[in-house]
Amino acid sequence: MTLDKILEEIKKANTIAILTHESPDGDAIGSVLAMGIALENLGKKPDRIIREFPRKFKFLPSAEKVQQEPSQEKYDLAIALDCADLRRLDGKEIFENAKETIVIDHHGSNTMFGDVNFVNPVAPACCEILIGIFTYFELDIHQDLGSCILVGIITDTGGFKYQGVTPETFDFTAELLRKGVKVSEIYEKALETRTRSNFELLKRILSRMEILENGKVTFTYITSQDEKEVKAEAGDHEGLVEIGRGVEGVEISIFIRQIDNEQKYKISMRSTNDINVSDICYLFGGGGHPRAAGCLIQGTLEQVREKILSEVHKALK
Amino acid sequence: MTLDKILEEIKKANTIAILTHESPDGDAIGSVLAMGIALENLGKKPDRIIREFPRKFKFLPSAEKVQQEPSQEKYDLAIALDCADLRRLDGKEIFENAKETIVIDHHGSNTMFGDVNFVNPVAPACCEILIGIFTYFELDIHQDLGSCILVGIITDTGGFKYQGVTPETFDFTAELLRKGVKVSEIYEKALETRTRSNFELLKRILSRMEILENGKVTFTYITSQDEKEVKAEAGDHEGLVEIGRGVEGVEISIFIRQIDNEQKYKISMRSTNDINVSDICYLFGGGGHPRAAGCLIQGTLEQVREKILSEVHKALK
Repeated sequence: MTLDKILEEIKKANTIAILTHESPDGDAIGSVLAMGIALENLGKKPDRIIREFPRKFKFLPSAEKVQQEPSQEKYDLAIALDCADLRRLDGKEIFENAKETIVIDHHGSNTMFGDVNFVNPVAPACCEILIGIFTYFELDIHQDLGSCILVGIITDTGGFKYQGVTPETFDFTAELLRKGVKVSEIYEKALETRTRSNFELLKRILSRMEILENGKVTFTYITSQDEKEVKAEAGDHEGLVEIGRGVEGVEISIFIRQIDNEQKYKISMRSTNDINVSDICYLFGGGGHPRAAGCLIQGTLEQVREKILSEVHKALK
Repeated sequence: MTLDKILEEIKKANTIAILTHESPDGDAIGSVLAMGIALENLGKKPDRIIREFPRKFKFLPSAEKVQQEPSQEKYDLAIALDCADLRRLDGKEIFENAKETIVIDHHGSNTMFGDVNFVNPVAPACCEILIGIFTYFELDIHQDLGSCILVGIITDTGGFKYQGVTPETFDFTAELLRKGVKVSEIYEKALETRTRSNFELLKRILSRMEILENGKVTFTYITSQDEKEVKAEAGDHEGLVEIGRGVEGVEISIFIRQIDNEQKYKISMRSTNDINVSDICYLFGGGGHPRAAGCLIQGTLEQVREKILSEVHKALK
């Protein structure tokens, strides 16, 4: 069984790197930290490697152990978490150099790029998969480990909101509460706290938001100049796409963000109904989940806006 | 025991009115609808009386049974739900006229204004109290009943977020999911859907938001003129106070709303830490919970702003 193989590889390895995708969100961070703690509980000393660690997650147990650079030339084992594709992996070369590789993920679009792959596209968060894995490994999910897992679940389910949430998600959270984990505090910190820069960006995207296609689509954007003006750091644009989502009648909300002052935009799309935004993003080489997806498009703001709105228009037909 | 007494009164009554507070929120609506269904399951034909039913909750089971006016001069029994004070009860005169009265609530400030009072200030929502009551009555909490209860829990906990959330809240939700209740759909409808009018109000309050007291306080407002311009209906201002809450460093967020074009404002306050906003609101004759409270203040916008900010300034010391 895959989980036995994973445990065997972990036990065998002397040096282990834990990696995740670029621009890590709460599930990515939670997964890396949870795996780090779990491996320590198994007697290992793993390297958690994340180049840009969003400051809002610095409150998490073991966040101080995260490093930006590898300590080894070649690891015995590299574990990629919450990452669908090697191209998106932060530390791609570390993974490619490792003697043995494991992929654990919940994206349906996962390319199975590891030697061992454990992918469950039905899980609402990579962290929820980890609960099952750690339980199989007979690890105690104590407060610290539980808190990291909870962050992944809360952020990837939008606070227990999205359709993928399972009864087990709630059972697990009830259990954590009984163990004394401050669920509400973690929730607010992980999901509800906006940095001042994020708040200033929110004001800008709201004032610019267009409502199109007879109220079915919202479109808004931020430029590199905006981010500079509000002194945005890594992660400060997180969650902005959500604001258009809940508006009555809106089926697709689109948020685009300029990358590094270039003629290149990161598109984030959210859907509230049956329209699969992952399919739309796939047309531009991106992907994700049916109700939350992204891609990169080159061009000026106006060109990118036209390209994406034209595909969205077709999808609405 | 109080619950036996409540069941006895229900069984005895031929005519029953179910009431809740003015400007009903999700917990008020959920409580009334849940109690209505429960009483029907006990063989009763209760009147659910709510004068202004917010349209966002019209999707709920039995919402079509809500009436604006009483069908009786004098009810055998009136039940007030989620209401701390007779003065805030929508249908005060119906309650006062009734032969027997019951109060079920979760506000610590409840004045115990019924013949029978069942108040649990630790419960995160009035609907959560109802779970215990219905279980004691040996009623089956089926999908319809469960959906109404869930709306109250979701809205009063901000989506399982606030500190009052208990392990039982999560156990209950896991159970509902297993019974086939579409938790995610209810969540989005109850908490995430913004009417277009609400969205337009949100844009206005954000663009006007002041950040005061070295970033610890946010203040914003809407006037009756704003509501007229965006064609706001009952409930369209709901949730707007929350937007200031999550901003990094903000301890108190204040949202004030003009009432009926008069020199009178409804103040809504939220706290993210130890400052008890219920105490501040109490100074103006209002109340609520430590982290979510409200009051009414007379005066012009500028006068009201001064009054409330001056008390907030003292509380921050």
